[in-house]
Amino acid sequence: MEWEKFFEPYEQAVAELKVKLDYLTTGQVKSGTRPVESVTGRVKSQASIEEKIVRRHLHEDRLALDLQDIAGLRIMTKYIDDIYKVVELLRKRTDFTILEERDYVMNAKPSGYRSYHMVIEYPVSLYSGETKVLAEIQIRTMAMNFWATIEHDLNYKHGEIKPEMATKLADISEQTFALEQELSEIKEMD
Amino acid sequence: MEWEKFFEPYEQAVAELKVKLDYLTTGQVKSGTRPVESVTGRVKSQASIEEKIVRRHLHEDRLALDLQDIAGLRIMTKYIDDIYKVVELLRKRTDFTILEERDYVMNAKPSGYRSYHMVIEYPVSLYSGETKVLAEIQIRTMAMNFWATIEHDLNYKHGEIKPEMATKLADISEQTFALEQELSEIKEMD
Amino acid sequence: MEWEKFFEPYEQAVAELKVKLDYLTTGQVKSGTRPVESVTGRVKSQASIEEKIVRRHLHEDRLALDLQDIAGLRIMTKYIDDIYKVVELLRKRTDFTILEERDYVMNAKPSGYRSYHMVIEYPVSLYSGETKVLAEIQIRTMAMNFWATIEHDLNYKHGEIKPEMATKLADISEQTFALEQELSEIKEMD
Amino acid sequence: MEWEKFFEPYEQAVAELKVKLDYLTTGQVKSGTRPVESVTGRVKSQASIEEKIVRRHLHEDRLALDLQDIAGLRIMTKYIDDIYKVVELLRKRTDFTILEERDYVMNAKPSGYRSYHMVIEYPVSLYSGETKVLAEIQIRTMAMNFWATIEHDLNYKHGEIKPEMATKLADISEQTFALEQELSEIKEMD
Repeated sequence: MEWEKFFEPYEQAVAELKVKLDYLTTGQVKSGTRPVESVTGRVKSQASIEEKIVRRHLHEDRLALDLQDIAGLRIMTKYIDDIYKVVELLRKRTDFTILEERDYVMNAKPSGYRSYHMVIEYPVSLYSGETKVLAEIQIRTMAMNFWATIEHDLNYKHGEIKPEMATKLADISEQTFALEQELSEIKEMD
Repeated sequence: MEWEKFFEPYEQAVAELKVKLDYLTTGQVKSGTRPVESVTGRVKSQASIEEKIVRRHLHEDRLALDLQDIAGLRIMTKYIDDIYKVVELLRKRTDFTILEERDYVMNAKPSGYRSYHMVIEYPVSLYSGETKVLAEIQIRTMAMNFWATIEHDLNYKHGEIKPEMATKLADISEQTFALEQELSEIKEMD
Repeated sequence: MEWEKFFEPYEQAVAELKVKLDYLTTGQVKSGTRPVESVTGRVKSQASIEEKIVRRHLHEDRLALDLQDIAGLRIMTKYIDDIYKVVELLRKRTDFTILEERDYVMNAKPSGYRSYHMVIEYPVSLYSGETKVLAEIQIRTMAMNFWATIEHDLNYKHGEIKPEMATKLADISEQTFALEQELSEIKEMD
Repeated sequence: MEWEKFFEPYEQAVAELKVKLDYLTTGQVKSGTRPVESVTGRVKSQASIEEKIVRRHLHEDRLALDLQDIAGLRIMTKYIDDIYKVVELLRKRTDFTILEERDYVMNAKPSGYRSYHMVIEYPVSLYSGETKVLAEIQIRTMAMNFWATIEHDLNYKHGEIKPEMATKLADISEQTFALEQELSEIKEMD
């Protein structure tokens, strides 16, 4: 496996999409009221891909199809309804094709995880010509990002999250979501 | 008021401190368990300074002393106790002097605002020689940052926050803090 | 004229194209032998556009057509023949359309200026939908860039370049080009 | 040899010094007449350090003293006299100590190489406390940078530069320097 060569189109895709998404809501409205708070991007690490190859019995020559999040972008918003404004903006774009959308905002995963996921096909111009890569865009509020970061950290620190811990985490996710819904109501008050 | 010249040392200070704080916990521990999640920096806008001059009756030639947050850095952590780890790291540094510390983490403002504030004196080398500027470093968890961002946004959108809205916001801050304390306990479980 | 709104698509185009051109020769060959040495980008300043409006009697509502270099990218190469390698790479891309090419490398301007110019039409996805903007890509060797930077600086410092100065500058350009051609020969020696 | 840990203070030093040198002449004069054209920085690669260990019989525990250019910064100027303006500015700074200066501008190396070299001692605040690292700052005109880049490239491509090639390169360096001196005279004309 020539990893350096393998990662090239993904690194380029993440770099290009990071810039494009940074401009997503620029110029739309006064800066203070933009739905997008911040954007981050990353290419999945070789270690993480190798771990998935083993765990999911993947074939090396099918990685580009089987792993949809090698190129990953994340958009953080202030409010829950901003997520759907961002989704609408992404659907109108002509520079990539949306292959799949999954709404884990309204339908949280059992763990408590909430985010809106979009898998896109994005064309990159390489030295060797144009190629298309898959990329995953996650759209979530700052509060959902807070919870997901903590859950990821606990998974990392403890190897695996135990049932009691998992129950508490899912509970905290629910309570956080309730607070966010309250904030949405406050926002609409005059 | 020559604003461009006025802002120069602050822009330079923010750019330098942003890099320095980005490296604050690098190399300390495995990347997955770093206390610092992200760092941002900004120079206060001219409009915002002019508004404060009027509202607080400030003298233009005393701005550098009276406004301690013209240069502003913000450090986001995962957990509450990470805030104090970061504070310890900042206290050990020799490249700036800490003038003042305020703990709004354990003693929230009446609004519900939580953060640890540090005012530092930082030397910058300008074309005209070395000068010292004040800068404010805010240290807060991702959850405190979520709340503060929403509160700032509501202030911006509504001009002023009404009593009923303020009560609800303060209440949401308390509940968020309670959830964070629960997470801290979960973190210590085996 | 709403300048802020006017500049938006150009700023976005320059930011996106800067990333794309930075990756132009990545992964192609060992880094030591890449034809591209560096890439820069800039949006033409408002002052410079206003000066052109006056001098060339331009209409404000035709600026996007009449000024082809509001968005400007510059690619610096090591050797003269690298310029044409880069041109070939740009012609193969599918993410923009080339409208015009001018070879001032082999046919220097009377001033001594050498560079390869390409005007492209580039699609940007704005909040309001996709729009196409013109951008100019200049491709030149480091030596040509050295000369052009000095000539620009002298123009700026002296307001206008006097005949005697212009003659000397054109002469220096010729001598620099002769040295570059010698270097190309050295490169091919075994 | 724990390379990752070894490189940390150098990476931090280069990142900090890059920002500091970017601001070196900001605000001094109108942007069009700044002596500094661009600044780059890099940490020496592990491969390059290992090659030097073998070739120069270095001890691993003395690398930080024996290799003065592990952290490297480069400042490009327009004119020859700008080099000495930059040197003066660097000498006035209080955030690092200059250990050594070598003027290869007026006293070119036999190869034809021209640059002003400065070795500094720079304090970095690490997690483990303050440490001092050596860094090399090279100051050269754009034309000297053009020549040095080509010479480096030929060395890389040919393994070693043959006598005939070396003679031609040294000759081209002399001619380039003569052209630069002519430009300096043109600059002073009215």
